[in-house]
Amino acid sequence: MEVSSVYVQGDGSEHDRPAQPRAFLTGEDRKSDHLRVGPYVDFPVSVVLPAGGSGERTGLQTPKQFCPFLGRPLISYTIESFERVSWIQTIMVVVAKENIGLMKDIIQQFQHNKVRVVPGGSTRHRSICNGVVALGEEGRPAADKPKAAGAIRPLVSTVIATTSEGYLDHSLERAKYRASEMPQGFTYDVIYQAYQKCTESDFEFGTECLHLALQYCGTNAKLIDGPPTLWKVTYKRDLAAAESIIKETLSQSACLITGGLEAGVTLGKFLQKAFGSLDMELNVTPNLMGDNVRYLLKDWNFIQVSVSPSCLSEVEAILTALQAENRALLNPAVIIWMYLSGTDEPSTSGRPAESAALISLASTAKLRNILLYGIRLHQPEDTEQWERSASRVADIASALIRDRNPALVGQLLQA
Amino acid sequence: MEVSSVYVQGDGSEHDRPAQPRAFLTGEDRKSDHLRVGPYVDFPVSVVLPAGGSGERTGLQTPKQFCPFLGRPLISYTIESFERVSWIQTIMVVVAKENIGLMKDIIQQFQHNKVRVVPGGSTRHRSICNGVVALGEEGRPAADKPKAAGAIRPLVSTVIATTSEGYLDHSLERAKYRASEMPQGFTYDVIYQAYQKCTESDFEFGTECLHLALQYCGTNAKLIDGPPTLWKVTYKRDLAAAESIIKETLSQSACLITGGLEAGVTLGKFLQKAFGSLDMELNVTPNLMGDNVRYLLKDWNFIQVSVSPSCLSEVEAILTALQAENRALLNPAVIIWMYLSGTDEPSTSGRPAESAALISLASTAKLRNILLYGIRLHQPEDTEQWERSASRVADIASALIRDRNPALVGQLLQA
Repeated sequence: MEVSSVYVQGDGSEHDRPAQPRAFLTGEDRKSDHLRVGPYVDFPVSVVLPAGGSGERTGLQTPKQFCPFLGRPLISYTIESFERVSWIQTIMVVVAKENIGLMKDIIQQFQHNKVRVVPGGSTRHRSICNGVVALGEEGRPAADKPKAAGAIRPLVSTVIATTSEGYLDHSLERAKYRASEMPQGFTYDVIYQAYQKCTESDFEFGTECLHLALQYCGTNAKLIDGPPTLWKVTYKRDLAAAESIIKETLSQSACLITGGLEAGVTLGKFLQKAFGSLDMELNVTPNLMGDNVRYLLKDWNFIQVSVSPSCLSEVEAILTALQAENRALLNPAVIIWMYLSGTDEPSTSGRPAESAALISLASTAKLRNILLYGIRLHQPEDTEQWERSASRVADIASALIRDRNPALVGQLLQA
Repeated sequence: MEVSSVYVQGDGSEHDRPAQPRAFLTGEDRKSDHLRVGPYVDFPVSVVLPAGGSGERTGLQTPKQFCPFLGRPLISYTIESFERVSWIQTIMVVVAKENIGLMKDIIQQFQHNKVRVVPGGSTRHRSICNGVVALGEEGRPAADKPKAAGAIRPLVSTVIATTSEGYLDHSLERAKYRASEMPQGFTYDVIYQAYQKCTESDFEFGTECLHLALQYCGTNAKLIDGPPTLWKVTYKRDLAAAESIIKETLSQSACLITGGLEAGVTLGKFLQKAFGSLDMELNVTPNLMGDNVRYLLKDWNFIQVSVSPSCLSEVEAILTALQAENRALLNPAVIIWMYLSGTDEPSTSGRPAESAALISLASTAKLRNILLYGIRLHQPEDTEQWERSASRVADIASALIRDRNPALVGQLLQA
């Protein structure tokens, strides 16, 4: 049986794990994995993504869906989340007329390939309706049960009814109610018919698609508990929360390349422990050749150990490999050049040549969305002092990886 | 007429402008100002701050009220917010028995002086009731109108009722309902009587004080629209949002001290423009003497211009002054030592002596909650190159001020 279904998503900003990069998904997000490979969905499914809002509640001039996170607009993260679900065919993005050009640029820049763009209407329901109608050309009505479904979350605050004079009328029992969240799914006929039958008043003031499905098609949506990470960007503070989640996701692991150096192995072991206490995994490998090339596909962060102050060739090799894999297109990668200086060099000196080369290479890397920093670890003979320095390396390296601060690229920091 | 009132606040984590530092308030938060100085509140007001929760929904081991933000637990920010309201007398913090010691340490460390600590009960209402009863010793019943009030916010998501089988029953009309937020205010007799009369079931399962006031005292609370910045920390992502708000508040302005240098004035003008485009104000002053001492009270961030590579005495003077004012007790201050190097020095060299002195001074400063960084600006003769460098200074300085990253203190960055 072939069934056509439609997902409706919030303003380009509601999603579970908004920034989950493609690579981390493998083996981690099992639910998503089995959906992608399994035989469970054998009918066409498409998404309507209403992104026509003005984002008033964020208080920013740029609508939230176009706000950049680590250089990429929020809506691109949302699109990416749906694109990696293999059984989703088309993502119909509904944007205000004046933003169609911007939207098409985003699609091109971040190489989205399942997206179609359609102009929005004057309200949320009018926009969604436009998307549903546009999808109709490729969707076929079908029947299945349940015909509608939506994500829900427990209420965070008590909901109260007010009198017209602004006093408390009554409060609702929190346990009996839920917050209706995104995404919501419908068989095509249900959402299409609901929009055909609904009133001008619904179009003007309504916000809830599940309500239309119930009122005009008699369809009681199946409600599905969303995880605590399901939430939507509404206010300015949510932008900070979203950025923090994206950064945390990208910082979960790093790969330290020892270059075959004994000192690199020692440092690697120390950092593994220090990173572990920060919930960051550190993979240690002599090089990125042969089987070790897998780290290039798995990690977003690299620490290249070196004892030669003037040689950045290993870093250049990582840059070339990341570019070949197109790894930094959607999310910035971090490379830290970890220069172990000899015991005879003054601990705080920086050499003009090495610094200039690092700054220059970092500028080039930044154009490819790769953030290159340097840390210079002076190797004293004293073990206790070494541990103090290594501990500073761990602090600095983890801070650089977590913050992904583009203003600090090319700096050679002292551990 | 003397009236005794009680404020009830959420889990130590709900507040408007949670991190608004004392100094910024002057002249900015007019509403708060007139409340502080005005004759409007001439009766005793106290606060019950229930902070006995386990913070399950954040998914962290530390309850959210004790989570550190820039080195200070969230609850200290909440207490600070209430302490700076002059007409609030006592803040009764209700914490779980096992955290009373921790709470007392926090009060001592951050020099809170209006706080009393009382052990919590097994549920939210039992904890609040303990606080109200404990307050009773210093509060007197009184009568006034309205006798109860609470903050509200529009609903972010549609609220729906579910059937017992997990299907949509009906959705509420969003416009008729509001989310009940904190703080809530009561005349003492209302909240005291409500807790005297309410049932075991209320104590066990209830969450809403306004509801108790209505049901047991017949008091319809006056509802007051809170600003968009009113929200509470519930999930882990909210911690990131709170930290971002605190950092943003502390980064609103900086003071650049030219040291009377012509080059400092030129740089100051350039940075004023660059910071302005980032919504950061930059005050430029030759020194911090005389009237200019006001910047020490107003700003949290200082940029000290210097042309002497070996002299950190001006920075030491700022450190001493900040410590004398006890300015960094509650919020970390940032000092950037801006070293303008001569045209004859190689642009990327770092000198052992200056770097070592900066690292050492930064370690000392960090113990006083002051974050010291260095930026070295090479002054080329070429104007175009100078502007490029100054632009990097602006990027680096604003990033250091906004991020307040303790792992990077003592670093001498190259612009």
